[in-house]
Amino acid sequence: MTGQTLRPFLRRATQLYPDREVVARTADGTKRRTYAETADRVTRLAAALRAAGVGRGDRVATLCWNHDRHFEAYFAVPDVGAQLHTINPLLPADDVRGIVESAGDRLLFVDPSLTDALTAAYDPEAFESVAEVVVMGAVPDLPVDSVTSFEEFVAGHGGDYDPPALDGDDPAGLCYSSGTTGDPKGVEYTQRMLWSHTMAIMTPMGLDIADADVVMPVVPMFHINAWGLPYAATAAGAKHVYPGPSPDPADLVALIEREGVTLTAGVPTVWLGVLDYLQDHDADLSTLDRIVIGGAAPPERLIRAFDDLGVEVVHGWGMTETAPVGAVSHLKPELRDADYETRLEKRTKQGLILPGLEFEVVDDAGERVPHDGESMGELRVRGPWVADGYLDGDDDAFEDGWLRTGDVVTVDPDGYVELVDRAADVIKSGGEWISSQAVENAIMGHEAVSEAAVVGVPHERWGERPVAYVVAGDADRDALIEAVSDRLRDSYPDWWVPDRFEFVESIPKTATGKFAKTDLRARRDEPLDGPVAAEPPADGEA
Amino acid sequence: MTGQTLRPFLRRATQLYPDREVVARTADGTKRRTYAETADRVTRLAAALRAAGVGRGDRVATLCWNHDRHFEAYFAVPDVGAQLHTINPLLPADDVRGIVESAGDRLLFVDPSLTDALTAAYDPEAFESVAEVVVMGAVPDLPVDSVTSFEEFVAGHGGDYDPPALDGDDPAGLCYSSGTTGDPKGVEYTQRMLWSHTMAIMTPMGLDIADADVVMPVVPMFHINAWGLPYAATAAGAKHVYPGPSPDPADLVALIEREGVTLTAGVPTVWLGVLDYLQDHDADLSTLDRIVIGGAAPPERLIRAFDDLGVEVVHGWGMTETAPVGAVSHLKPELRDADYETRLEKRTKQGLILPGLEFEVVDDAGERVPHDGESMGELRVRGPWVADGYLDGDDDAFEDGWLRTGDVVTVDPDGYVELVDRAADVIKSGGEWISSQAVENAIMGHEAVSEAAVVGVPHERWGERPVAYVVAGDADRDALIEAVSDRLRDSYPDWWVPDRFEFVESIPKTATGKFAKTDLRARRDEPLDGPVAAEPPADGEA
Repeated sequence: MTGQTLRPFLRRATQLYPDREVVARTADGTKRRTYAETADRVTRLAAALRAAGVGRGDRVATLCWNHDRHFEAYFAVPDVGAQLHTINPLLPADDVRGIVESAGDRLLFVDPSLTDALTAAYDPEAFESVAEVVVMGAVPDLPVDSVTSFEEFVAGHGGDYDPPALDGDDPAGLCYSSGTTGDPKGVEYTQRMLWSHTMAIMTPMGLDIADADVVMPVVPMFHINAWGLPYAATAAGAKHVYPGPSPDPADLVALIEREGVTLTAGVPTVWLGVLDYLQDHDADLSTLDRIVIGGAAPPERLIRAFDDLGVEVVHGWGMTETAPVGAVSHLKPELRDADYETRLEKRTKQGLILPGLEFEVVDDAGERVPHDGESMGELRVRGPWVADGYLDGDDDAFEDGWLRTGDVVTVDPDGYVELVDRAADVIKSGGEWISSQAVENAIMGHEAVSEAAVVGVPHERWGERPVAYVVAGDADRDALIEAVSDRLRDSYPDWWVPDRFEFVESIPKTATGKFAKTDLRARRDEPLDGPVAAEPPADGEA
Repeated sequence: MTGQTLRPFLRRATQLYPDREVVARTADGTKRRTYAETADRVTRLAAALRAAGVGRGDRVATLCWNHDRHFEAYFAVPDVGAQLHTINPLLPADDVRGIVESAGDRLLFVDPSLTDALTAAYDPEAFESVAEVVVMGAVPDLPVDSVTSFEEFVAGHGGDYDPPALDGDDPAGLCYSSGTTGDPKGVEYTQRMLWSHTMAIMTPMGLDIADADVVMPVVPMFHINAWGLPYAATAAGAKHVYPGPSPDPADLVALIEREGVTLTAGVPTVWLGVLDYLQDHDADLSTLDRIVIGGAAPPERLIRAFDDLGVEVVHGWGMTETAPVGAVSHLKPELRDADYETRLEKRTKQGLILPGLEFEVVDDAGERVPHDGESMGELRVRGPWVADGYLDGDDDAFEDGWLRTGDVVTVDPDGYVELVDRAADVIKSGGEWISSQAVENAIMGHEAVSEAAVVGVPHERWGERPVAYVVAGDADRDALIEAVSDRLRDSYPDWWVPDRFEFVESIPKTATGKFAKTDLRARRDEPLDGPVAAEPPADGEA
């Protein structure tokens, strides 16, 4: 028995902080319960799951926002030895259907406000494994066979619950990665992975979570366990605040003020919305200490604006495969006295790999690249909360325990990782790498450009060369190309300048709103072979 | 591969903090090396260990103070799959001999200043497994077969070291508990136990260790891995300061000032000595943030004096069997505004059990006692860094993964554990428990008493009754008994008052300086049977 399971976290919180609260904004008003009451409800739900035949290795799906019942499922489902399978209801219906079919979920919990997503995805064959749908509230009309309400499901259970023995290798979670290419891939979490991740993000090098914190995960609980915050807040004995379905900026600000939130987390757009709201509304954010940003790099103006409000923006990096937090832009002590711009530069990077993980950044030949802030390579990570395979056995991304993240990064001499591209998108020209994202950002910096995507197309001599697709209305195209090329040459080697600029009406997008670069690359099936705008280093020919 | 091993901690520190220092005060002056240099030396030592035939499951003993080479062994020995077996050189020679024989150590590292302890313990038969003694400096005359110096041992090694694959279940450490009764018992640490302990003490609920810290373990590295600080400081990327052989208060203060120590740790007597020193010497302790105290509760005057200096005394509890930290007297947020005396009361307790562990406090019948600050029971803990057996197979202390700590404690409504007695010493009278330590403290509070020990002796009706052995010079005995009894009745039930006070010249002591209560109990082989000073509750007869 290793004891590396989630159960002791909640048990300790109940013993040491019985009266601390788990608060949720729900469609039925504010729910406010203590850890002691919450633990009783977790026991009741676990007993109901067992009575429904859910046991070791089974999967229980959720299509839910951030609220009290979802939190209870976070502990109850793994407690019976099953996997909590959080599904993103915002995925295309085909993906939701495919995920349920692939996982073979035995039960499915759904929010009343998300039953449309279930209805759209539902198909009796794909959902054959689902014995029952449990609605987190009143039961609406649903085209599924067996439906019950949460209260009905748990009624009468709990008193006789005998928790099964668990160890670190037991299953605990399942989350599908909505990668940029191909079908979603299932990532399984063991008890040990979630235990390790919880301990790591509690440390000062992680998110520094203590019992004094009031933690509000705005990042959805269907998005990689809300970055692990529900587990870490419990382990620390912190107060929880769940913002419920579709919170808007006014809801979030009201919760911060009323509940005294100290730590919150979400993608940048959420906080840009909050900043806009704050321009027209007075608010007291004095308790708020830090906002964890992930999913995309925080814009500088976001960091600056919250600095002015006395709130620290902490940038984190992670993936479904890393459960998810792998790096945090913690400011090293020697940088704390640096000028503001230098600190800002570090804080916008993906950050320092967490204690407990190993990392390396390697080029195409598998050689480690220097930590000079310029050399690019693919980030590889390994450790106790890093997956070592996918559910469907497609294990190309894994090698000797290392996860090939697919993220192309630089590491600066201070050790900060910066994401510069996706491996699938980086342009390999003359044996050197060109960051498509860097070139895109430079082009989008031009005032007339609304969107730009840069892809590599085959070139006989140089392997690949960059081609830019640009949305620029009726701007003067030649002047724009000249201005953008000059700007690129200011910051990057000459040979990063695209050989061709194609002006288009719009850039094709994927279901999750990212540039569909695969489509763009397919547009140029003829290799380029002419002279290039500037030649890559001659010693690195393709 | 779980990756729950020590190796990634040092590797990450070397990648992210290559220039941060590991500083040691040694007999040869100050050693000052970077993590990068230190990691090279660890590789060199690991290669030398392999060349000497040390491999998986072997044991390598150290009889060493806190210095650079001992730190290198902390990482190098587990890195080859062997157990680092730290031996306390202050133990009686018989114990050292027995420990080496029981462990079957393959190599033994010894400090030049501790060779006398080795010579005293040495016996060719008991040391038969020891192929070589490696001296951490110049080689003196020693009565052992094969002796070499550290520099000779490592010379020429390192370049070709190929680290073996390790996982969490691999052995990593060994430490003998110098318990109060019986022979020392060996406690083995796996890589996973040390990994888990490292993560736990880094958290804010533990010792809150960050890269900005400068960590000086004064607690000897032969004493349960210096409470795990060398590993945690490495994991955090902190600077290390090792105070070398027999540091005196002047040495410690000089190191704090010169190296900017922020976090240090040791037993109360060390810090009482530092306080005395500070009365006559100016010192700038402005960098020092906190002192971790363990091994014995910090006296209130120690906490008050350091509070006046702006240094927080943090009390921790642990055992060899808990690797060692199990609880820390972290102040809960709701207590931070309490009055000073209330906070002091909490801070002198053993504290809150760490996240990741489970605990319960049970009476003789195995029932959990209420957390009311008064009900006594034996503390039981379980978790990823708690041993589940002893090396010699004497496993009475272990049950269902629970460690019976042998510590009798109360838990107050805020969850703070307070040690009130050892289970072997608590007096069980009429089905209720009397804390021998509490009664002793009350008696020793009388100005004429220099020492007092209280033991339970058999009583026909009440099971046991307390008898006090008192050293009180030529004080008026009747007056003393009356005063002490009054004092006891002020704070405790009447029936806690000893039935008999025996005035003695001195109290017998164990090898480690504790009261030899077993000897005292043996003095009264005739059960008591007369009337008692006050009767325990009638419903709880023996």
